[in-house]
Amino acid sequence: MSKKFRVGILGATGTVGQRFVELLEGHPQFEVTALAASDRSQGKPYREACAWRLPCEMPARVSTLAVSAPQPPLDCDLIFSSLPGEMARETEEAFARAGYPVISNSSAFRMDEDVPLLIPEINHEHLALIKTQRKTRGYERGYIVTNPNCSTIMIALALAPLHARFGVESCVATTMQALSGAGYPGVASLDVIDNLLPYIGGEEEKIESETLKILGVMADGGVKPADMRVSAQCHRVNVSDGHFGALRVKLARTVELEEFTDALASFSALPQELRLHSAPARPVIVRDEPDRPQPRLDRDAGHGMSVTVGRIRRDAVMDYRFVALSHNTVRGAAGAAILNAELLAAKGRLV
Amino acid sequence: MSKKFRVGILGATGTVGQRFVELLEGHPQFEVTALAASDRSQGKPYREACAWRLPCEMPARVSTLAVSAPQPPLDCDLIFSSLPGEMARETEEAFARAGYPVISNSSAFRMDEDVPLLIPEINHEHLALIKTQRKTRGYERGYIVTNPNCSTIMIALALAPLHARFGVESCVATTMQALSGAGYPGVASLDVIDNLLPYIGGEEEKIESETLKILGVMADGGVKPADMRVSAQCHRVNVSDGHFGALRVKLARTVELEEFTDALASFSALPQELRLHSAPARPVIVRDEPDRPQPRLDRDAGHGMSVTVGRIRRDAVMDYRFVALSHNTVRGAAGAAILNAELLAAKGRLV
Amino acid sequence: MSKKFRVGILGATGTVGQRFVELLEGHPQFEVTALAASDRSQGKPYREACAWRLPCEMPARVSTLAVSAPQPPLDCDLIFSSLPGEMARETEEAFARAGYPVISNSSAFRMDEDVPLLIPEINHEHLALIKTQRKTRGYERGYIVTNPNCSTIMIALALAPLHARFGVESCVATTMQALSGAGYPGVASLDVIDNLLPYIGGEEEKIESETLKILGVMADGGVKPADMRVSAQCHRVNVSDGHFGALRVKLARTVELEEFTDALASFSALPQELRLHSAPARPVIVRDEPDRPQPRLDRDAGHGMSVTVGRIRRDAVMDYRFVALSHNTVRGAAGAAILNAELLAAKGRLV
Amino acid sequence: MSKKFRVGILGATGTVGQRFVELLEGHPQFEVTALAASDRSQGKPYREACAWRLPCEMPARVSTLAVSAPQPPLDCDLIFSSLPGEMARETEEAFARAGYPVISNSSAFRMDEDVPLLIPEINHEHLALIKTQRKTRGYERGYIVTNPNCSTIMIALALAPLHARFGVESCVATTMQALSGAGYPGVASLDVIDNLLPYIGGEEEKIESETLKILGVMADGGVKPADMRVSAQCHRVNVSDGHFGALRVKLARTVELEEFTDALASFSALPQELRLHSAPARPVIVRDEPDRPQPRLDRDAGHGMSVTVGRIRRDAVMDYRFVALSHNTVRGAAGAAILNAELLAAKGRLV
Repeated sequence: MSKKFRVGILGATGTVGQRFVELLEGHPQFEVTALAASDRSQGKPYREACAWRLPCEMPARVSTLAVSAPQPPLDCDLIFSSLPGEMARETEEAFARAGYPVISNSSAFRMDEDVPLLIPEINHEHLALIKTQRKTRGYERGYIVTNPNCSTIMIALALAPLHARFGVESCVATTMQALSGAGYPGVASLDVIDNLLPYIGGEEEKIESETLKILGVMADGGVKPADMRVSAQCHRVNVSDGHFGALRVKLARTVELEEFTDALASFSALPQELRLHSAPARPVIVRDEPDRPQPRLDRDAGHGMSVTVGRIRRDAVMDYRFVALSHNTVRGAAGAAILNAELLAAKGRLV
Repeated sequence: MSKKFRVGILGATGTVGQRFVELLEGHPQFEVTALAASDRSQGKPYREACAWRLPCEMPARVSTLAVSAPQPPLDCDLIFSSLPGEMARETEEAFARAGYPVISNSSAFRMDEDVPLLIPEINHEHLALIKTQRKTRGYERGYIVTNPNCSTIMIALALAPLHARFGVESCVATTMQALSGAGYPGVASLDVIDNLLPYIGGEEEKIESETLKILGVMADGGVKPADMRVSAQCHRVNVSDGHFGALRVKLARTVELEEFTDALASFSALPQELRLHSAPARPVIVRDEPDRPQPRLDRDAGHGMSVTVGRIRRDAVMDYRFVALSHNTVRGAAGAAILNAELLAAKGRLV
Repeated sequence: MSKKFRVGILGATGTVGQRFVELLEGHPQFEVTALAASDRSQGKPYREACAWRLPCEMPARVSTLAVSAPQPPLDCDLIFSSLPGEMARETEEAFARAGYPVISNSSAFRMDEDVPLLIPEINHEHLALIKTQRKTRGYERGYIVTNPNCSTIMIALALAPLHARFGVESCVATTMQALSGAGYPGVASLDVIDNLLPYIGGEEEKIESETLKILGVMADGGVKPADMRVSAQCHRVNVSDGHFGALRVKLARTVELEEFTDALASFSALPQELRLHSAPARPVIVRDEPDRPQPRLDRDAGHGMSVTVGRIRRDAVMDYRFVALSHNTVRGAAGAAILNAELLAAKGRLV
Repeated sequence: MSKKFRVGILGATGTVGQRFVELLEGHPQFEVTALAASDRSQGKPYREACAWRLPCEMPARVSTLAVSAPQPPLDCDLIFSSLPGEMARETEEAFARAGYPVISNSSAFRMDEDVPLLIPEINHEHLALIKTQRKTRGYERGYIVTNPNCSTIMIALALAPLHARFGVESCVATTMQALSGAGYPGVASLDVIDNLLPYIGGEEEKIESETLKILGVMADGGVKPADMRVSAQCHRVNVSDGHFGALRVKLARTVELEEFTDALASFSALPQELRLHSAPARPVIVRDEPDRPQPRLDRDAGHGMSVTVGRIRRDAVMDYRFVALSHNTVRGAAGAAILNAELLAAKGRLV
């Protein structure tokens, strides 16, 4: 049995931080050895500092770890971060500078030119940016790798196989997003009972810009964004977990329905080939029942790491339409970062 | 005080039937004198036949009316119908043939070439079809006038002022529809708790076809459908009343944001001019808060007869995007039919 | 037309404050002339200071009033207060001392020996405490009158006619309370989706103590609490408005079911006799359908001022059981305070 | 590896039937070999006959089994039944007569004098009734064993350790029950959105009578009901799974809080001793946070087989009060029946 990488979690008491703890319990490569949070919980053992809200029990070993302030040094080999945007920029930078690989779920650095916005199934080549990043920022051993926004991941994973095979010219995405995406306490119950909200601050902009970077290609040492237009309308609905999107795409060439479906259903990539621990057997699952996917029934597909697609139809305005669903705090956040770390480990980027 | 028209309601015990009863209580022109339903409730007084589910009290006078079978003759001057599609075709036809004006909320005749699919703010000229209808079907005094599907009404009312002023080339609509649209018992609670459904049988097709007829113009004695492409993706969400739509439009010419907004906000039409009883002061209300409209807060705007629009933005793929909301059992069903009847009365088509 | 009393509202931007504004719009005796809030909204016009969350439009006249700090003097004849407990004590005291009648929905003074805990249908004699209060506190013209906690009101109104006619020895109450009872933002949506909460801080204690004071009688210049034991278990459920209680009672004598029902159904008291503006025709409505009352269907009964009772049955452990429902921000808060003020006006206690 | 018992499921396509299939997948002692349902699904493979609504995938092996009519013979050694009450009586009787042990979740035979109403942690001695049953009914090899109603199980498991140690004189139970308890489609979504229902047909009666039989003792060859009074008020709330109860008890003697808590927390019985496969390590889990248990967080405790208790407090009317929660389709239905079968197997009653 090889030694495990020792992991520190920034933002450990939040919604995504709790998912990190849950998903890392029993992980074959990672072991949680440090917890940090920005709030009044510092100094307390995790079981007291954290209002644990997952249906499972808090892992016993982690429950006694003391919560630290989010600043280096921490007793670990790498950092998972899920800090609020405002404070993420300074804190993650400090850890990277202090020599830690920072695997971040925060939005702070996602669109920086020298920071990979990584989905291992799509753009592992973007890890070449780490070299640039170290040079431009003067990091010696540390670096920052980010994963996309929780809605963007779902959309990008659904578009990637289509873009690779046919070319996607434009995409119109309308999302219905889960409450856990807003953290805790997040959305007030009075705002969603018998209701929905047509607004999630910054979300439409994130989807429209992040998707192009994710699907972009390396050129001249940087990422050349995909030549594609993306339109997003985002809504909060009364669902606990599981972001849902209604998507239409216009393709660069004529495509038969069968081809289109096959591109999605047969999608497999490097994480599947490398058999990374958190990689789902099928990154995209295609269902053909008329009323699937549904958040409650399908969000846990592939242990929360698969995107489930359904209702693939020809569209009267664009070329094709379909719906997609993925678990926003697993594939869309903590699970995404862990898969990123597994890829980095497989590529020898963690030491 | 002039004599009121005596009204019969088909499907009186259902979700829409109850709305008819509620909205007609105290109406200055109409008085409910007959109730009919297709189920085992026939012969019972309405208060026993009907599991009343509206928060208000059942109107006392109507509560003692006996429920009849849905077949002519009924003791009334005109018929409001909200029967299930399968039985509407035969029954409504029988009433029209027997001399009754049939103001129908059912889908059976909506797309028939000689039947008006009426929204008084948009296409009152289509009433010219009544003449054709009588000729082709051999009706003497009766006729059938329909209102659109509950989602279509909202979309058509939002598109009408844009189409009139700028020309709409295509529209992409993604709906989040209320539970009451499925009637009672309708959607199972286990299907929508912590969930949404990506499928409403026949709904996408209805929106895509009905909208073109509604926005079409009279030509050669028939309706020439609008030259426009409409794409609809429909979803059921955990909201009691109030259909919501995220819309994008491509226009026939370049339009400034201000012009676009003004076309919607300043929309007014014949029902407003005629001051029809159920006509809202503003058929389309434009709100500029970032998080409105919301079903729970805005569905009752204009006594449930206004469409509330918000989040008007330029779109990266189409030209503009915005969201719209309207009350599906008022403006989208019973209120729509009553407004149709009010227009028919104003035009001397009821006697 | 007599001149209206000019009213100031403390806590005007909160959930109950908004209800005050809504219910006072068009009130024949009261007119809102001052608004105060404890937060950063001071100085702004109400329409900017307040995130209005009621389905109706904010009353136009009030929307332009500037929000003041909650301290005397305010431009008004009396004060309605709905401040958080911590700050209510000091603030309300200050207004009473400055000469204002303070009609408070806060919990701060409810259990003080010299402060009436008033439900006009039950204990208007308790207003005699005002005299004591002025003497002990040295108030000249001002005073404080409180209304009970939102759950207690419902329970007390259901018990009062039973206690008056039969004597209630003990009551076991299990509540299922609405989200709006916690204010805004209040309960996190993630805490109630597909869930309920078995805890509302301080609520069980309030019900158990306030009920005894309300049902107590004046003796020796003070209130002698009712000789009764009350047990409360309180729960938060996923309902927007409308507190619900499952009640069992043990009576001082044997009572037939008919008598028991009649005591509740025939209950009428001073506010009904005086025809106070907000007094419902029937303070307690008894329904005999097996599945009523329900929050969504019955909370607005009597314009939100009636308590609806149903499912009256003999009980295997206590004597009788039944369920009760009332609107927690109308009868349970703002409406309660307004009815209190109406009674005070009728008794010449407002000048 | 010993041979597994071959199991047939009656009502296999329903909510509880699906739970049976899920819970029996990979079971060390039982293997599903026959499926029966009363509807139009007969003859089809299970994957077509059943609208599977559990978040997990339908087990592959079972998905191809053809659904039979619910009548003997079926290709199996014992029967799990979850049929609607009306048809359960005749069908289960037929299977028992044909020689099958029938482990029933239906209500049909529960209160029959010669039928065990079994909760293995409480009353395994009641299995002595099987002998009487065979004699009175003339069964040769078959017999019927039932498990209680889904709410009763929770209440009985919470009362059993208290009754055993202190004697329970009376219990007042107020339930808030989950939607899945009504099966599918069950409760209409319009009935529970922003609402709760104060009525579940027959439920209060079942709790009040079944509890006494379960806690009764064998005497003179029959079950002598417990000398205890139980009062139940039952409500349906907007929760998918997990029945919740607010309970008060009056005990036969004075008991300290610590003793009371210990009786619950230390409860362990025969299934734990025998290490039956589905027996939870702790039948009753006591939590001391002020806001637990909650359905969403605690229903899966002990793989859905534990009852979680919290908020133990002295009560002003009875002696103690507390709240309890258990998973209604696992511990309350399918899991209960499977545990019953495991006990029967351990006692050599299955062959």
